[in-house]
Amino acid sequence: MRQFSQIPAGLPQLGIGLIGTGFMGRAHAMAFRNVSAAFSLPVQVHLAALADADATRAARCASDWGFDHAHSDWQQLICDPEVDIVAITTPNHLHYPMAMAAVEAGKIVYCEKPLAVSLAQADEMRNAAKEAGVITRVGYNYQHNPIIGLARQMIDNGELGDIVSFHGEFSEDFMGDAATPWSWRCEETHAGGALADLGSHLLALARHLLGDVEAVCADSNTVHAQRPAAAGSNETRSIAVDDQTHALLRFANGARGTFSSSWLKHGYKNHLAFEISGTRGTIAFDQERLNELQVCRAGQAGFQRVLAGPSLPGYAAFSPAPGHQLGYNELKTLEVHALIQAVCNQGKEGPDFEEAWQVERLATAIRVAARELRWVRIEEV
Amino acid sequence: MRQFSQIPAGLPQLGIGLIGTGFMGRAHAMAFRNVSAAFSLPVQVHLAALADADATRAARCASDWGFDHAHSDWQQLICDPEVDIVAITTPNHLHYPMAMAAVEAGKIVYCEKPLAVSLAQADEMRNAAKEAGVITRVGYNYQHNPIIGLARQMIDNGELGDIVSFHGEFSEDFMGDAATPWSWRCEETHAGGALADLGSHLLALARHLLGDVEAVCADSNTVHAQRPAAAGSNETRSIAVDDQTHALLRFANGARGTFSSSWLKHGYKNHLAFEISGTRGTIAFDQERLNELQVCRAGQAGFQRVLAGPSLPGYAAFSPAPGHQLGYNELKTLEVHALIQAVCNQGKEGPDFEEAWQVERLATAIRVAARELRWVRIEEV
Amino acid sequence: MRQFSQIPAGLPQLGIGLIGTGFMGRAHAMAFRNVSAAFSLPVQVHLAALADADATRAARCASDWGFDHAHSDWQQLICDPEVDIVAITTPNHLHYPMAMAAVEAGKIVYCEKPLAVSLAQADEMRNAAKEAGVITRVGYNYQHNPIIGLARQMIDNGELGDIVSFHGEFSEDFMGDAATPWSWRCEETHAGGALADLGSHLLALARHLLGDVEAVCADSNTVHAQRPAAAGSNETRSIAVDDQTHALLRFANGARGTFSSSWLKHGYKNHLAFEISGTRGTIAFDQERLNELQVCRAGQAGFQRVLAGPSLPGYAAFSPAPGHQLGYNELKTLEVHALIQAVCNQGKEGPDFEEAWQVERLATAIRVAARELRWVRIEEV
Amino acid sequence: MRQFSQIPAGLPQLGIGLIGTGFMGRAHAMAFRNVSAAFSLPVQVHLAALADADATRAARCASDWGFDHAHSDWQQLICDPEVDIVAITTPNHLHYPMAMAAVEAGKIVYCEKPLAVSLAQADEMRNAAKEAGVITRVGYNYQHNPIIGLARQMIDNGELGDIVSFHGEFSEDFMGDAATPWSWRCEETHAGGALADLGSHLLALARHLLGDVEAVCADSNTVHAQRPAAAGSNETRSIAVDDQTHALLRFANGARGTFSSSWLKHGYKNHLAFEISGTRGTIAFDQERLNELQVCRAGQAGFQRVLAGPSLPGYAAFSPAPGHQLGYNELKTLEVHALIQAVCNQGKEGPDFEEAWQVERLATAIRVAARELRWVRIEEV
Repeated sequence: MRQFSQIPAGLPQLGIGLIGTGFMGRAHAMAFRNVSAAFSLPVQVHLAALADADATRAARCASDWGFDHAHSDWQQLICDPEVDIVAITTPNHLHYPMAMAAVEAGKIVYCEKPLAVSLAQADEMRNAAKEAGVITRVGYNYQHNPIIGLARQMIDNGELGDIVSFHGEFSEDFMGDAATPWSWRCEETHAGGALADLGSHLLALARHLLGDVEAVCADSNTVHAQRPAAAGSNETRSIAVDDQTHALLRFANGARGTFSSSWLKHGYKNHLAFEISGTRGTIAFDQERLNELQVCRAGQAGFQRVLAGPSLPGYAAFSPAPGHQLGYNELKTLEVHALIQAVCNQGKEGPDFEEAWQVERLATAIRVAARELRWVRIEEV
Repeated sequence: MRQFSQIPAGLPQLGIGLIGTGFMGRAHAMAFRNVSAAFSLPVQVHLAALADADATRAARCASDWGFDHAHSDWQQLICDPEVDIVAITTPNHLHYPMAMAAVEAGKIVYCEKPLAVSLAQADEMRNAAKEAGVITRVGYNYQHNPIIGLARQMIDNGELGDIVSFHGEFSEDFMGDAATPWSWRCEETHAGGALADLGSHLLALARHLLGDVEAVCADSNTVHAQRPAAAGSNETRSIAVDDQTHALLRFANGARGTFSSSWLKHGYKNHLAFEISGTRGTIAFDQERLNELQVCRAGQAGFQRVLAGPSLPGYAAFSPAPGHQLGYNELKTLEVHALIQAVCNQGKEGPDFEEAWQVERLATAIRVAARELRWVRIEEV
Repeated sequence: MRQFSQIPAGLPQLGIGLIGTGFMGRAHAMAFRNVSAAFSLPVQVHLAALADADATRAARCASDWGFDHAHSDWQQLICDPEVDIVAITTPNHLHYPMAMAAVEAGKIVYCEKPLAVSLAQADEMRNAAKEAGVITRVGYNYQHNPIIGLARQMIDNGELGDIVSFHGEFSEDFMGDAATPWSWRCEETHAGGALADLGSHLLALARHLLGDVEAVCADSNTVHAQRPAAAGSNETRSIAVDDQTHALLRFANGARGTFSSSWLKHGYKNHLAFEISGTRGTIAFDQERLNELQVCRAGQAGFQRVLAGPSLPGYAAFSPAPGHQLGYNELKTLEVHALIQAVCNQGKEGPDFEEAWQVERLATAIRVAARELRWVRIEEV
Repeated sequence: MRQFSQIPAGLPQLGIGLIGTGFMGRAHAMAFRNVSAAFSLPVQVHLAALADADATRAARCASDWGFDHAHSDWQQLICDPEVDIVAITTPNHLHYPMAMAAVEAGKIVYCEKPLAVSLAQADEMRNAAKEAGVITRVGYNYQHNPIIGLARQMIDNGELGDIVSFHGEFSEDFMGDAATPWSWRCEETHAGGALADLGSHLLALARHLLGDVEAVCADSNTVHAQRPAAAGSNETRSIAVDDQTHALLRFANGARGTFSSSWLKHGYKNHLAFEISGTRGTIAFDQERLNELQVCRAGQAGFQRVLAGPSLPGYAAFSPAPGHQLGYNELKTLEVHALIQAVCNQGKEGPDFEEAWQVERLATAIRVAARELRWVRIEEV
């Protein structure tokens, strides 16, 4: 890996290799394009290569998004000497082989969540990265939100006192209709289910804000046990993954709380929400209003709405004016910026493979607790 | 007990005997005064007698509130032949002896929640009432809210489809300050603690809306284990009851969910809130905005605010115009009206001693689950 | 008029005579019944007499609501020596003859809003009352809300700094459907129209909070110029009154602002709302959530929700606990309490005939400004 | 001007020349960079040149943002043959000379709002552009919001029935403190004041949604008539521009309403809000929650929150998932996309110099109405 911390005259190039052109592929592309306009960087971001198994699509996306080369073979991209960072946005079961290859090639690896489709894979990946000494990041982008930064700061500097409780929920409605057909998200081998698909974001956020969880108890169930094999199909497929999971959490800091994840809940599109209460105050957040934090300090009459503004680290990169609001893609840009800062030894904040394994371990503990209907200590898993 | 269902010419009098003159005492008094103006009743409500251990206070309140007689001995009130309904609003540990005496005297008993300070007492009370054949009611007033009636109707008539999940929380902040002193609410023998004091309202509401719970898992803790013995005192007392309890619930109808109760949560004054989601829609309610229900049906873009109005049973008794809003005391008036309807054989809806015992049993199961850190089936208790 | 300020041993009786048994009639009855339970009064409230032109209805309501006598002739009620306070809740055009007769009889007069159906009538009424020296009150009940009391206090003690702007709106939707038939509310001679029927409440509130208005400019229009003569009728009637009125206001204290009143606005049931902003803060209120005030002080990040509680004068009469919420009828009880306090020389707050004339004069100025499409100084009218 | 509508094999380049590097300069740069990733365009966007009077800053920004050339003389940029679109983001008083020069050079002109600092300038500019036949756009970016597109569509297709009323407000608090010093925004010759700076956005939006305004009445005032000459200075400067303006509007379609603009209003950061009501429904919007529209149709109980999603034109370019939210900068990207579509003859929607002159004329009419305290017909101005 090249060294970016000693910046020579003329900015060094940081070559980006992006694998995948779906929702997340394009979000990465936009973020890498945007980061240079938003921030003064010590490197020149170079969109070196894009890979998609569909060569035509790879070529078109590379052209549209400004990448220099297109590959239909992701292994070529990883080997490309122009590529410093390998960004992986493919379906979940491909994260493992791609990330392992990238680590082996000594590349910086920026992988979408979930890290892997099994805890064993995730364990292998974190160990490989640690041994190779490469920088890694996993796309838990929600924690890069400046207003989440404010929440974390309030917790860390004691403004909320001792943390007493956590209530977290990630609910959407996209599987709410029994007629919504089977997809790869319905397969456990692809890290499907409401807990893995949605809940892991919430677990990552809970850990980001409150640290380690010590023990969990949980309950999972599948409401629609059969779904059409495809849209409009008469054939059905059995579904084994959870439609919803509820859990109790005990944090190492003493806080207790609840966790819920559902993809059946009418009324919600992106309801990644939490409420954290301490001896001196309470804060509440909902990703559906991502620029707002509700805050009530002890002794105050009620919650106050805090709207994100340029006083929060990260926000001013996009607007000097409060209330103008960041969008989802800008959280991704902030994630990419944090990665580049790490690459340039200017910061180390952010979830790496080690942290992603912790998230997966926590999710696994919840899965065990739900299956065995008992409290499970995380260290058991 | 006199029969009120055959209404003679000239309305029969229904004599009220009220024990207690605190928060709930006055709420009962206002409700019994108000019910005749709000509803056309088949009986004449007669404020027959008021009892308070403090004779001076009893006399003053009787005069202010329009009761004919004042007693400092509650047993005299129970024996008063003018008294048909004995309303019990004294501290929790007195519910048992008073209700048992009233049942024995063959009176209708209207007791504030919780029914008793132990499940054994509650069991004895429901059995005594059943054997005596007297009408009983317990003051779970929140379920008499017309907008809760709408919620129940939507659930019962299938508008939400099969019920999938329940999230309930009852949080207040009145014990949030570590310097708030010990009170009887801090004693388990007085049915103190966040679960008993607040949570039981939520459990009653959950049962009212969704029916039986089959199994629970729970976690309770005491955050402030020492409190001043009195305001400003240097002496402290140890606190054994829970400051907060979290639980997982499994309902007999298949719904799963979470339950939380806290009296430490800054930002909330009366946050008895729930969200119930089914295969065809979701509803949400918060007692802090008691005239509103949030509703989202499958296929709709988001929640719609439904404001209570005269189309809902009960509301029109207080106002012919929507959006004018009922207050807490009018929920109590509706509770009293439901009791009078039951007395006159015009309806039987409403929580009686049997139902209150069910609520206490559920709370006890949660207590056992939290103590033993395991799932508990309700029928174990 | 009897003197109630020197309270003898044994509370003097204060006799209530209520004319009218509609929405407001019943609201008054409930309020007079409730006020004794809610407050320790220096008088005994005596429900002396009830009048309704329909003798049967008068008798039934008197019985249901606890009044001693029923009259079908309101003049008899006014002459009844047991009656100290004459409460007038009849259709608007009857306020004038009834109030004038009551004033002449030396009674305390408590009249529903609007005071009269013309400014000339209102002028005559205030003068008659002043000459007779009788206590008068007009039912602008919204200003008795404890949270409005908080708003007024914040304004009066300078917490908002110099008041800069006022935005007020009273919108409902009950005439929003073109098929809603004609009613007396559609007649100017009955003080109909959105400005008179709804807007006058807002004008009274604006004056209560900010004092005199100096000049106005306005725009009124009738959207549905024809309505069915009755429900389902093919016959139509022409409508001359306004469906909506908008205005600009200049207050004597220097504040500027906007005013709107509509009975056509889908989405609103009782949207009597205002926002008042000063050099040091902003407050906002909506009658559809009557227990809440939104507050933002200079330098704060956003609005904070303040929920009514017992620290606000008036609230504790109904509940010792915050967040339990008052209802519309309790605002009426507070109005009655303020009247009784005035009668007993214990306070003088509250809108009398003089103030009601000021409100009518302001509404008239808006009507002139809308008709002549020019700015109108209030003193012109 | 080159023709972009006939797309040859190999996409033609569309050269961008950006003048200004402030808040809006960077927003334009990000938008031009982003538009290619978000949309499949028939042209290749080429960041040809950047100009800033400060040569060093120009060079640094050009490098950071990916522009090929940097100029310290904006006239050179306009003459640059690589530049097809001249984007003007300089202080308001420079819009006129730059736009006139760009028009004269036959370039496409994309100018930030306000178009000019006087109506006479704006008139000259629209006429020059019309005569030159160049495509023009003005940065009223808020109307490119997909949820505003939904609002417009609901209005245009009659879902709200006949439009009856408009309430619009643009309030911020950035001048709310009397100690906030003078800036160019306090000068009328720089198009300063709350009406010009904020209000014009609202007027543009009102016109976008409801069309022409026919007449206005208005009231403006300056609350803080003196401000420090600079931060911390003892010297003060007199302020002549408005701190707030309120107005009544009459639309050509028959709707009536109110307009407010303030930069003094504590509690608001970007409160560009409106409510539009028709005979069949009401919609409400607030830029502080730019991804939401509140909708209530006739007969519905209350407002429903509609959260932006990929079914709305424009949204899917940024995310395939609802509830993920666009940010302010993405509205700018949509504005740039609309411009490129116009250039390629694929659409013509969007505010040009003619429309910007209409907005300025409307603002001028409000200014006249406020100065002369009378109703003003727009055609008078």
